[in-house]
Amino acid sequence: MEIEVTQEKLSKALNNVSRIAVGRVTLPILNNVLIRVLDNKVSLVTTNLDMAIVDYLPVSNAKDGVITVPAKLLAEFVSNLPRGEKIKISEKNSKITIAAGKYKSTINGSPADDFPELPEIEEKKAVIFKMGIDEFKNGISEVMVATSNDMTRPALTGVYFNTEDKTLAVAATDGYRLAEKILVKNAESEVGVIVPASSLQEVLRSINDDIEEIEIAFNEDLVRFRMGEIEIMSKLIDGSFPDYRRLIPKDNNIKLDLSREELIRVTKLAALFAKSVNGAIVCEAKKPDIFSIKSVASELGENDSKIETTVENEGKVNLNSRFLSDALNALEEKDIVFEFSNSISPVVLRNKKSNTYTHIIMPLNS
Amino acid sequence: MEIEVTQEKLSKALNNVSRIAVGRVTLPILNNVLIRVLDNKVSLVTTNLDMAIVDYLPVSNAKDGVITVPAKLLAEFVSNLPRGEKIKISEKNSKITIAAGKYKSTINGSPADDFPELPEIEEKKAVIFKMGIDEFKNGISEVMVATSNDMTRPALTGVYFNTEDKTLAVAATDGYRLAEKILVKNAESEVGVIVPASSLQEVLRSINDDIEEIEIAFNEDLVRFRMGEIEIMSKLIDGSFPDYRRLIPKDNNIKLDLSREELIRVTKLAALFAKSVNGAIVCEAKKPDIFSIKSVASELGENDSKIETTVENEGKVNLNSRFLSDALNALEEKDIVFEFSNSISPVVLRNKKSNTYTHIIMPLNS
Repeated sequence: MEIEVTQEKLSKALNNVSRIAVGRVTLPILNNVLIRVLDNKVSLVTTNLDMAIVDYLPVSNAKDGVITVPAKLLAEFVSNLPRGEKIKISEKNSKITIAAGKYKSTINGSPADDFPELPEIEEKKAVIFKMGIDEFKNGISEVMVATSNDMTRPALTGVYFNTEDKTLAVAATDGYRLAEKILVKNAESEVGVIVPASSLQEVLRSINDDIEEIEIAFNEDLVRFRMGEIEIMSKLIDGSFPDYRRLIPKDNNIKLDLSREELIRVTKLAALFAKSVNGAIVCEAKKPDIFSIKSVASELGENDSKIETTVENEGKVNLNSRFLSDALNALEEKDIVFEFSNSISPVVLRNKKSNTYTHIIMPLNS
Repeated sequence: MEIEVTQEKLSKALNNVSRIAVGRVTLPILNNVLIRVLDNKVSLVTTNLDMAIVDYLPVSNAKDGVITVPAKLLAEFVSNLPRGEKIKISEKNSKITIAAGKYKSTINGSPADDFPELPEIEEKKAVIFKMGIDEFKNGISEVMVATSNDMTRPALTGVYFNTEDKTLAVAATDGYRLAEKILVKNAESEVGVIVPASSLQEVLRSINDDIEEIEIAFNEDLVRFRMGEIEIMSKLIDGSFPDYRRLIPKDNNIKLDLSREELIRVTKLAALFAKSVNGAIVCEAKKPDIFSIKSVASELGENDSKIETTVENEGKVNLNSRFLSDALNALEEKDIVFEFSNSISPVVLRNKKSNTYTHIIMPLNS
């Protein structure tokens, strides 16, 4: 094996793939990156068994071959070499030599036979969606906040990609709140699968400024994200997602138009006093035209803030301030709508203009 | 007690002092900031018993009084209020009310009598130095890297302020390396005291762009740093600092002129391979005109980098790569001098042009 490549290209590709290369005591080869050279195409592959990242590097005059070497060591070494330097990597006796100007290193590798590769997506059977990278990135970020960490309910630790009425939506819930975003409005295929949040996190991290579009291909138990030179494969979560559309209240008595920035500020101020009561704050719509947020932590003190807005019906609901903050950060517009019916019904939050994002928060007992 | 002040001023002052307000189970009042209003001057005081920070706020039409309240809660509350807002703080029945536009909070406080204040510096007996804030900041940062964390040798956990031949120098050593910087060349007073590194860290953190000069006043067992509206008082470390000037080798056979940037890079590359050998790297001056750094970690691989420079005498020395990196980051100039005599003598690092900073590193056994 022999390749020559610029420092910038190699360093970028190695940084992309090396993040998930975390060895286990029982399987130290997961520390490694697989370097495969075939017909002047280099692929760099890492895996943590649940997912794999592949980065393709076009090269010329390369000699074919395959080896695995410690991913983080190679990535850090290459990233510290001078920019603009030509790097030559050659393999011999399960070792690679990296030479760049006055700098030279030898890194001991392991044979590629021991490296566990994820199965490939079967192109013929795959369900494929394409979308702009910004829509994907924003949509996933906005729902991911509602995923659960509770490994005893695996379906809630992922994001549910699902179609209804030719619309592709993503949704997530941890049982206390729920977020849904519409990604594609004229979807031609149907799907209903759960992608691990941890894999989506890696997809988001791999997005760079050169990428404009993403292709998502689903098989029965696998998903592949393809963007630019990068492919990320992940196993799907085997489980059934709650019938979440049923949980979104259709009609609410109380509808408040609020400035997102002002509500973020008021929520933060209230949260400071709500630490000893598990973040509980009291949201109240009062005539004439006041929305107030209060928190009372007897030993610390108390807080009361007011926002002016049109109030047609009065009502009060207790919320977890962290959940409200998360929702407000996921919303995008300057103005938002805060809806609820009474102290035991969920609160619905939406952007004022667009209606592709819905966030609901269950109330706390008052 | 009653004061009115702008959000910006109050928030800045509270952020300055609240950092060290960390309560102890046995002394929860250390969580608090003491607010004292006297003759239209507000002082905000926090302490951790070893040191105290005071920030002075000029106000008008204030009513005198004194109280203590949780520092971090008040600082966070004020920092989240809108910029430009006038804030009114009033005290009644050991509570303060903070009102700003539509935002209002009550915070429960404790009486000031329970608040432990540090003794004052006796102005008459004090030894005082003044210097530009940049000289102070750079000098302290450059020697602080060599302080020890070993609490069994308290003298090494501080920075030694000392005068010799009308020169004020600061020095620090952890037994493996030593750094010295000359701060003032025509010092008129004499001193020889050890200031805790933790207190100096807080002084450095308190420096902001408005500050141009610092005044340092020493008493027998106290130091006071005064800059702008901020005063930081700290106890001194009771102990004797090693006679460090004796440890700096006067003459070295091998003197190498090196580019700091290049040596930083080469040290980083070598350090990657030196992890399993506790960071040990081999530095060698070889004729004709090569300085090389090598590291060998048998199971990972090996690394060899070369820098071209004039070599008059040959020699080899083993160093800890982290110590070399720290020293190079503390040096300032583009070109530096790397001196040593043999494999068991200390390495001396200096900037090429200025001679106010000296860093020495003890060699590892080869």
